[in-house]
Amino acid sequence: MEFTAQQIADFLQGEVIGDGQIKVNNLSKIDDGQPETLTFLANPKYNHYLYTTRASVVLVNRDFIPEEKVSVTLIKVDDAYSCIAQLLNMVNQARPEKKGIDSTAVIAANTSVPQSIYIGAFTFIGENVKLGENIKIYPQVYIGDNVTIGDNTTLYPGVKIYHDCVIGKDCMIHAGTVIGADGFGFAPNNGSYQKIAQIGNVIIEDHVEIGANTTIDRATMGSTIVHEGAKLDNLIQVAHNVEVGSNTVIAAQTGIAGSTKIGNNCMIGGQVGFAGHITIGDRVNIGAQSGIPNHVKSDVTLLGYPAVPAREFARSVVMIKKLPELNKTIRELQEEIENLKKKIDK
Amino acid sequence: MEFTAQQIADFLQGEVIGDGQIKVNNLSKIDDGQPETLTFLANPKYNHYLYTTRASVVLVNRDFIPEEKVSVTLIKVDDAYSCIAQLLNMVNQARPEKKGIDSTAVIAANTSVPQSIYIGAFTFIGENVKLGENIKIYPQVYIGDNVTIGDNTTLYPGVKIYHDCVIGKDCMIHAGTVIGADGFGFAPNNGSYQKIAQIGNVIIEDHVEIGANTTIDRATMGSTIVHEGAKLDNLIQVAHNVEVGSNTVIAAQTGIAGSTKIGNNCMIGGQVGFAGHITIGDRVNIGAQSGIPNHVKSDVTLLGYPAVPAREFARSVVMIKKLPELNKTIRELQEEIENLKKKIDK
Amino acid sequence: MEFTAQQIADFLQGEVIGDGQIKVNNLSKIDDGQPETLTFLANPKYNHYLYTTRASVVLVNRDFIPEEKVSVTLIKVDDAYSCIAQLLNMVNQARPEKKGIDSTAVIAANTSVPQSIYIGAFTFIGENVKLGENIKIYPQVYIGDNVTIGDNTTLYPGVKIYHDCVIGKDCMIHAGTVIGADGFGFAPNNGSYQKIAQIGNVIIEDHVEIGANTTIDRATMGSTIVHEGAKLDNLIQVAHNVEVGSNTVIAAQTGIAGSTKIGNNCMIGGQVGFAGHITIGDRVNIGAQSGIPNHVKSDVTLLGYPAVPAREFARSVVMIKKLPELNKTIRELQEEIENLKKKIDK
Repeated sequence: MEFTAQQIADFLQGEVIGDGQIKVNNLSKIDDGQPETLTFLANPKYNHYLYTTRASVVLVNRDFIPEEKVSVTLIKVDDAYSCIAQLLNMVNQARPEKKGIDSTAVIAANTSVPQSIYIGAFTFIGENVKLGENIKIYPQVYIGDNVTIGDNTTLYPGVKIYHDCVIGKDCMIHAGTVIGADGFGFAPNNGSYQKIAQIGNVIIEDHVEIGANTTIDRATMGSTIVHEGAKLDNLIQVAHNVEVGSNTVIAAQTGIAGSTKIGNNCMIGGQVGFAGHITIGDRVNIGAQSGIPNHVKSDVTLLGYPAVPAREFARSVVMIKKLPELNKTIRELQEEIENLKKKIDK
Repeated sequence: MEFTAQQIADFLQGEVIGDGQIKVNNLSKIDDGQPETLTFLANPKYNHYLYTTRASVVLVNRDFIPEEKVSVTLIKVDDAYSCIAQLLNMVNQARPEKKGIDSTAVIAANTSVPQSIYIGAFTFIGENVKLGENIKIYPQVYIGDNVTIGDNTTLYPGVKIYHDCVIGKDCMIHAGTVIGADGFGFAPNNGSYQKIAQIGNVIIEDHVEIGANTTIDRATMGSTIVHEGAKLDNLIQVAHNVEVGSNTVIAAQTGIAGSTKIGNNCMIGGQVGFAGHITIGDRVNIGAQSGIPNHVKSDVTLLGYPAVPAREFARSVVMIKKLPELNKTIRELQEEIENLKKKIDK
Repeated sequence: MEFTAQQIADFLQGEVIGDGQIKVNNLSKIDDGQPETLTFLANPKYNHYLYTTRASVVLVNRDFIPEEKVSVTLIKVDDAYSCIAQLLNMVNQARPEKKGIDSTAVIAANTSVPQSIYIGAFTFIGENVKLGENIKIYPQVYIGDNVTIGDNTTLYPGVKIYHDCVIGKDCMIHAGTVIGADGFGFAPNNGSYQKIAQIGNVIIEDHVEIGANTTIDRATMGSTIVHEGAKLDNLIQVAHNVEVGSNTVIAAQTGIAGSTKIGNNCMIGGQVGFAGHITIGDRVNIGAQSGIPNHVKSDVTLLGYPAVPAREFARSVVMIKKLPELNKTIRELQEEIENLKKKIDK
């Protein structure tokens, strides 16, 4: 597909500054601008790329005023970032849609499959599974008995969903993610351990996205729940009976121990660890690699191991750097006091 | 299934306090008690839930004395926690058992399959594989050539076991776990790296449980070994030639570098990192997110990065918080000394 | 297979000290030496094992002089480590080669498959995939539309490669690894989040090895790139638009946030975290579990959270241990000053 700058400007209700007839056939990032592509400028830190980019057309905000001469064609729009998101979405949707049920898929006799669904090769679907409309299930997916999957949800290749779990509408689960494996529960028993059966399930509510190779364990009893609109990245561990709040975003490789509840609209960095049986409030921000041993109230920003308010962490880092100097100062003070003592005792 | 409180009390050799005829059809946690369920109280921290739970029946220890009026039916037993574990197990075993060999499975001609086994759809089993009795192999599992799997072991969907590995009896391996991929070994070679072939294997002894998406690499030579009764959670990395001791429990996302030996009956928290080529004693406890750079002797509790005895870690945390204050004190001492000097020199 | 010490010495251009007719049938590590095996000694830390090993033959460097009486047969060679690497490789290549296309594999009609390729059971290959010569694709692999795979590359069981990604020549990707899942990109939208479509791809250049259950996300626009000769271990997270430099080695469970560029010939420990949008120079060494929040210039060795030069980290660790003592010293100084003041004021 190829469009002129003018066609794109018309579509986005923007204004062309430069050559309206120049053509583009793809999108690129401004720090990696490719010829015959359209790129965008939304973050002022990237402004300097504008003057050297090899891209042909750049979307900018309407109030942007260049500081140097610009040789590329600009399209001025109300919100460059949201326009590029819109264009990315259009390009993505132009890919041919997956349809139909592959003849190799194995589907239990008492599971009924709506006509609108896509089921890829080598996918297994167990007994009494409830499938909504317009679901896309890629190859090599496993769906255990009694699972429910809502409308418009996409399961990428190799996703594994154990029995009894519930996946909402408009969800996206990436390749290799495991939903509903046993929680990690054992009772000590004369030096060895006895398994505690895990009879609960996992509930993923609507509009949740989960990355690749993440694991969300089933509850011992009751449900492990990821609430509406939460976004989980790759390689995350969610233990049994955890709850992740609505519209909470969690970056890759974070781990949440058993029975911990995370509130709504939190932002959790990568490689964070949460202890078990704690409660995290709403709108909490936690920096990457932090360790959270205790309850956290709403509206705080934490960082460190164990995590402290972000300012306190910054102060500690500075102080730790100064420690050798402080140590030296203390030795000097000791000497001075010794000297003073001698003087006085004379 | 539905049981009366009296039926359950009879089965557990307990005593009903309240309505013996009230019926329950599931189990729930006391902080999430659901109507028509049985729950339990074993941890005094949860006592207050007893007076408000919506559950119908609560298992309590025989010596438990309520502090307020209780409206639910109680069943007093010798050990509420072990009774609930027993009930969970019964509920779990009531699920229909998986049986038979799916017609889509591919099994090499010279591998013989006992009648007692379950093999799910799209599972591949290579040459000369030795399979015990009553094994359950879910769909989409890969078992390479010359693998041995002991009696009563369960491999959940998508488990991958490379050639030559040995899995014991009564093991459980959850979805997506990879056993026997190559250890990470390369020899520097003029600025690039040459692969060191990894010709050893992995041995998982009896009664081991391994969570989802964990990776246990094959040895360069010899074996990477997980000893009897060890329990490994999700997303754990076990490198080549590591040994994990008997009845050692390791929480999610921990990583163990090459050739490290961990002793018996250790408890390792989540996201811990072990350096390579070190030896950890028996009954060692290591707190979550710790880093272990050196050998550790038996019977210690460590925490931190790098890990130190837990008490020392707690002291350091307190001291680091106090650093700005200490810094201020030192500045004040400096001033005071200057003042004293002036006075004396007068 | 069985060889005499003399046969092996002849092959390696080495010299037998001891019984040239003794036979070995496998390789072992010197700290775990098994009878009828050949082992090696390259690291002086392991010298003491030589006198007690149960192995039959030991490769040693030509300049090695035993300090005690040696009962095993030695073979002296120029470089024991590189000889053992050579032997490991030979043993590995002696395994029967996988060949042919399994009849259960599903391959799109417009993808052509060279005769030299191996494709295992239940592997799915999409439309317009370009496959080089001598590729080995194990069972249960997923290869999306328009993927390119170079000559001699091996994809182990269950690898998932999304559409449009490019894998180079002589690569090895271990089981369960996911290449090309969506980058983690969302735009805030009135308290919830809107997905940013990820239309870029992943490019894995030649001679790259990637471990098991690692995830490498596709770029938002453009490409996430792992450059030639890089080696990535298990359970690593590589976010969208990241670049990993040539011959850079990354240990398990490390995470690299979006748009970060890592230079060439770096060595990155396990469980390290990199912030997004930063640039790391060439030949940078980063210790395990470090956190890298900012740009790093070439030729430095960093450690800690946040990472500092390794020496500074070591100093800080010592100082933090000393903090309780320092605190005590400060209290004593305060007292001494008080005493001095009193004396002076008298």
